[in-house]
Amino acid sequence: MRKVFRELVSIEKAKQLMFENVKIEPEVETVSILDSHGRVLAEDVYASVDVPPFDRAVMDGFAVKSEDTFEAMEDSPVVLRLIGGIKAGEVSSCEVKSGTAVEISTGAVMPKGANAVVMVEHTSVRDDKVYVYKPVAPMENVASAGSDIMCGELLVRSGTILTTREIALLSAVGVSRVKVFKKPKVAVFSTDNEIQNPEEKLEMGKIYDINLYAICSKVLECNCEPIPLGIAKDDYDELKSRVEEGLSKADVVITSGGTSAGLGDMVYRVFEEFGDVIVHGIAVKPGKPTVIAVTKNRKKVLFGLPGYPVSALMVFEVIVSPLLRKLSGMSEKRNMVKAVLSVKTYSDVGRREFRPVALIKGDQGFKAYPFTSYSGAIS
Amino acid sequence: MRKVFRELVSIEKAKQLMFENVKIEPEVETVSILDSHGRVLAEDVYASVDVPPFDRAVMDGFAVKSEDTFEAMEDSPVVLRLIGGIKAGEVSSCEVKSGTAVEISTGAVMPKGANAVVMVEHTSVRDDKVYVYKPVAPMENVASAGSDIMCGELLVRSGTILTTREIALLSAVGVSRVKVFKKPKVAVFSTDNEIQNPEEKLEMGKIYDINLYAICSKVLECNCEPIPLGIAKDDYDELKSRVEEGLSKADVVITSGGTSAGLGDMVYRVFEEFGDVIVHGIAVKPGKPTVIAVTKNRKKVLFGLPGYPVSALMVFEVIVSPLLRKLSGMSEKRNMVKAVLSVKTYSDVGRREFRPVALIKGDQGFKAYPFTSYSGAIS
Repeated sequence: MRKVFRELVSIEKAKQLMFENVKIEPEVETVSILDSHGRVLAEDVYASVDVPPFDRAVMDGFAVKSEDTFEAMEDSPVVLRLIGGIKAGEVSSCEVKSGTAVEISTGAVMPKGANAVVMVEHTSVRDDKVYVYKPVAPMENVASAGSDIMCGELLVRSGTILTTREIALLSAVGVSRVKVFKKPKVAVFSTDNEIQNPEEKLEMGKIYDINLYAICSKVLECNCEPIPLGIAKDDYDELKSRVEEGLSKADVVITSGGTSAGLGDMVYRVFEEFGDVIVHGIAVKPGKPTVIAVTKNRKKVLFGLPGYPVSALMVFEVIVSPLLRKLSGMSEKRNMVKAVLSVKTYSDVGRREFRPVALIKGDQGFKAYPFTSYSGAIS
Repeated sequence: MRKVFRELVSIEKAKQLMFENVKIEPEVETVSILDSHGRVLAEDVYASVDVPPFDRAVMDGFAVKSEDTFEAMEDSPVVLRLIGGIKAGEVSSCEVKSGTAVEISTGAVMPKGANAVVMVEHTSVRDDKVYVYKPVAPMENVASAGSDIMCGELLVRSGTILTTREIALLSAVGVSRVKVFKKPKVAVFSTDNEIQNPEEKLEMGKIYDINLYAICSKVLECNCEPIPLGIAKDDYDELKSRVEEGLSKADVVITSGGTSAGLGDMVYRVFEEFGDVIVHGIAVKPGKPTVIAVTKNRKKVLFGLPGYPVSALMVFEVIVSPLLRKLSGMSEKRNMVKAVLSVKTYSDVGRREFRPVALIKGDQGFKAYPFTSYSGAIS
């Protein structure tokens, strides 16, 4: 056994030793996408269908051959014969031939022969005649099959925390259940004779326990499941049995307190009974008295954090949190950025407009490039 | 009944009409602080004790009268008589008189007569003599009662989302259970003939439903409980019975689709059967075909959102989300800022240091003023 007592290491060294020695494989479970919000995806998901799955009208109006409308003008409309109607969700055998039009609602399959939709606002109907007052270009007001998401495309990567954006993408391609990482279990207890449960009346000389609650809260924020084990007195046997209980219930055991060089130091010795102490003391202020141990099989980790709440939380942030985030399968943090619009955009007067954009990092920060995609797109 | 059909209003006007007409009082429940993470506090919590509750050593060492140490030097230590020891959590009747010292551990109650702690590193002990090599000022290494949190202080305001910071503060003053707002229930379903459950094989002309999943996910993000009610066909009676089911189970009912001026518009008429339509059409792009209604008693709200996912989510963001956030009791958003340190700070070489700071907004952005408080402080 390497002697580590009081050999202060840097944060980086402590993390390196920890990641080298811990061999925990995150487990996987399958959940409905309705229960997947905030979970970490454990598989790469590819699109198995095109979105939209067919050429689709994106406006209410009339499906036409665009060539038929080229001469349409406000004061001299083109007149087409109305031969049918298609609602969204319907299958129709209608075919648009030159000189005819089919009434179509937003989202409906484009009928055979048609290559554009004239918005209802630019038409009028009398009997079975449609008057078209404005020309449309080929594919105008039509979303072609696969234009939003292409079949075979990588949609969401393993390691992504699922939010509304990803859940929308998954549902768009008909994925209703996904593999996510199981939440690692983390047992938490406080050690010290000086601390007391908040349920009890404060005795002289004691203070209320903060660490149990604050650390359980932090554990939740790392996408792990906290198992609170209360307070252990600063007594060798009690500490040992509490660590044992933690190891039987959880992958990671975190205790705080009892790790200073003062009168009540014994966390280090107790940890040694369950595995190898790999870090004893970190060169960080506050937070020096930190102990990290792993069980002999490298499958469970023990952390002894300082007793002071601020110290305990800071060590949690810089050492424990990276491990928990890794065990819970998380791969990266998400960011929010401010960006400059790359192009002038025009909005109708009196209407506020929201635009999805692509962000490109440049010399002067981020630039936002608006997509020109229609609002039915989800990707 | 005021005629609102097709009378486009601005987002601001729509929100104003909505907030004026909705009279839902958020309900309150009591939970353990271990279950309070992410919940919205429904009471102002004041400190009922001082933190720390007594003068307290913040270092391991020796409690002394500081006057006794003023002449201590590296090569000519002051010699004091050791008359006892106090561990953290203990009550001691020791009294420090001039010329004596009491061994004390971090967190322990300061003994009567002592007004400072000499760090163990600046002492040596032989038999019952303590050699002090460095003077200490009055109150050095001592946290006085109430220096972190004062009894009577407002700790956490109603409307705050509880995170680790607030949970730590609450536990510090012995609050183990808190009043939080109940999560408002929000029924969600999609309307349209063109959409299909992701569990089913996609039929020709149909697309997979996105809105049910995306909106339920958004509802969760507003601290509300989503109740998914699936898909209703674009049929008057089915739509009506689904709205009825939603109203029986939830405070808010959100449907999407079926609200354009096209072939399948009937959300507006169904909503009118259950209450008053207060908004029909919003001057925002995308998102125009939006319907908002309230029940006659003003206690439940109905939203008809556009069918296109991007439109539905944008209307959710600008109209629905502010209401849900209000119903769930949330008062404000939390921010992260970058700030410039106001003073030079010195860290020991080879140790990274984390400092709590106060943020003050100035002409050149935020400035960060470090607290000089010791690491046992949690406030």
